Amino acid sequence: MGVTPSDLAFVPFVSVENMMRLVNATGPERFMAELATYIEEDFRRWPEFDKTPRVASHSREGVIELMPTADSALYGFKYVNGHPKNMREGYQTVTAFGVLSSVANGYPILMSEMTVLTALRTASTSALVGRYLAPKGAQVMAMIGNGAQCEFQALAFRALCGIERLRLYDIDGSATEKAARNLRAQGFEIVECHSAQEAVEGAQVITTCTADKQYATILTDNMVGAGVHINAIGGDCPGKTELHRDILLRSSIFVEYPEQTRIEGEIQQLAEDHPVTELWQVMRGEAEGRRDPREITLFDSVGFAVEDFSALRYVHDRVAGTDFVTPLDMLADPDDPRDLFGMVMRAR
Amino acid sequence: MGVTPSDLAFVPFVSVENMMRLVNATGPERFMAELATYIEEDFRRWPEFDKTPRVASHSREGVIELMPTADSALYGFKYVNGHPKNMREGYQTVTAFGVLSSVANGYPILMSEMTVLTALRTASTSALVGRYLAPKGAQVMAMIGNGAQCEFQALAFRALCGIERLRLYDIDGSATEKAARNLRAQGFEIVECHSAQEAVEGAQVITTCTADKQYATILTDNMVGAGVHINAIGGDCPGKTELHRDILLRSSIFVEYPEQTRIEGEIQQLAEDHPVTELWQVMRGEAEGRRDPREITLFDSVGFAVEDFSALRYVHDRVAGTDFVTPLDMLADPDDPRDLFGMVMRAR
Repeated sequence: MGVTPSDLAFVPFVSVENMMRLVNATGPERFMAELATYIEEDFRRWPEFDKTPRVASHSREGVIELMPTADSALYGFKYVNGHPKNMREGYQTVTAFGVLSSVANGYPILMSEMTVLTALRTASTSALVGRYLAPKGAQVMAMIGNGAQCEFQALAFRALCGIERLRLYDIDGSATEKAARNLRAQGFEIVECHSAQEAVEGAQVITTCTADKQYATILTDNMVGAGVHINAIGGDCPGKTELHRDILLRSSIFVEYPEQTRIEGEIQQLAEDHPVTELWQVMRGEAEGRRDPREITLFDSVGFAVEDFSALRYVHDRVAGTDFVTPLDMLADPDDPRDLFGMVMRAR
Repeated sequence: MGVTPSDLAFVPFVSVENMMRLVNATGPERFMAELATYIEEDFRRWPEFDKTPRVASHSREGVIELMPTADSALYGFKYVNGHPKNMREGYQTVTAFGVLSSVANGYPILMSEMTVLTALRTASTSALVGRYLAPKGAQVMAMIGNGAQCEFQALAFRALCGIERLRLYDIDGSATEKAARNLRAQGFEIVECHSAQEAVEGAQVITTCTADKQYATILTDNMVGAGVHINAIGGDCPGKTELHRDILLRSSIFVEYPEQTRIEGEIQQLAEDHPVTELWQVMRGEAEGRRDPREITLFDSVGFAVEDFSALRYVHDRVAGTDFVTPLDMLADPDDPRDLFGMVMRAR
């Protein structure tokens, strides 16, 4: 690493404030486009990763999860919660932070807020997948669910797929107003819709991103025409889905990590051996993406640890040597590693 | 919780420096004795915890682990690495940090360094177990392996079990010199020994705490006489043990969590159904501890997530409202939780 132990005692930390500064200094679209190159690079070397389904602790109110992964040089994990009731109480549904470490000595080399970063990496992944699967020349995206993730998805799809027109719908009209206001300021052409049915009219891409922790049916079968790409973000834990089962049966389904998606994704509604295609194989050219202009493609997104790893790796590369990081006194570093006790005593 | 969202955006953080200040302000023996009451309390309500074996990522050089657990109100996890080669390169073999969160909304309520805290909780657990299992009136402890954990063990056993005399041995004489110097300054009567055989002479408690990642035989069968309590700390991952199998066969074996200890502890050398006693049952009075003055009792310590949870809970209670914590800008907290994007934009 070329650093001395005393440097390693302090872990570079990216606070929420500094993450926002970094995103604004970069521009959110460039940030997500650059991040997508890291995610694509990591998907293309998928077999190199030490992968495991996330470690979830469920309670009546929500879930707290740890999402670790590693390659031969770096280890990363994210802490993330999901509490749908939080929003009603003025808290974030999802908050997150993460750590990137050196596999060689186990020392963290970056700690970062990941509430903002998760929103960026989720959208960046969706748009990257959209570039492989959306119909050619897609310009219109329906967005059902206009919460915290909505604007990030829109900007990522513009940066990576050329989407310029949005049709917004949320069961809560004030969420649609909020998203419309933010996205008009970003230069999008917006139609505010009063039903999901209205939102999907003329859209080549449909993004569903609702947050209720229950089996819901945001889209029914009759609403989805031939040739669309569905970017299904919201169904991401056991018991939480957004799409009617019949849509799944008409779609070619693409997933991040089947072992996790079969538990958490839309496909928890299907038989365990229902065929799905792994995205890393599509990105390596080892499996086909969209085969037909009339095909319905579905990205059953649940969010996988490798994407967080890519995000931490990107941020680590971006902030090195800048003032976007502050040193955090997180690692004990005695002169003599065997003399931890002496270090504590000498601190008196 | 009685706190507003804007308070929750900042996570109270205990740095290494503040942990050392806290330990010194409290005194390490009182700290470990108080911590032991938290550990004992949590062991006594063991069935309430959501338990899982740690999630380990192994590499050629070492291991990085996440250790989560939760009760109905609090969730805790620890990040910890184990890299035996680190010491030769001037790094800590083990570094750690941890987080305590509210189950109700998933927000972290404490982040703490845990390199120092792990040393304290490991020793505190050992001495707590010693109070249940060591022979009555024990005064002499042999300590084989005089690395970073040694002094903490000695002080905890004095605070909780009345151990006043120590017989030290390490394959590296300079480690013994270091420990002897530190522990004489704490008022212990010390004998520096030149072999493990010499160290165990006349000891009622034998603590083994060596760090090599391999099957080692720190103690052979002939060295262990009737009636001793063995506190085996060092065998704590697959392929790493310290005791000859024959000692295990003569001992009554006590463990934290059999599912984990059978993979990581000394008992990985034994059949999968070899009888062991769970410590929480002993502490609840539902299983017998030491039954006979001539019995050899063995604590096959591997360290379990509940102990880290207890440690985080103790530190959280101790630092609330003090200057041992600093606020860490770790959680995004938009006025409107659905408007994360707007918060990022307004930060410009």
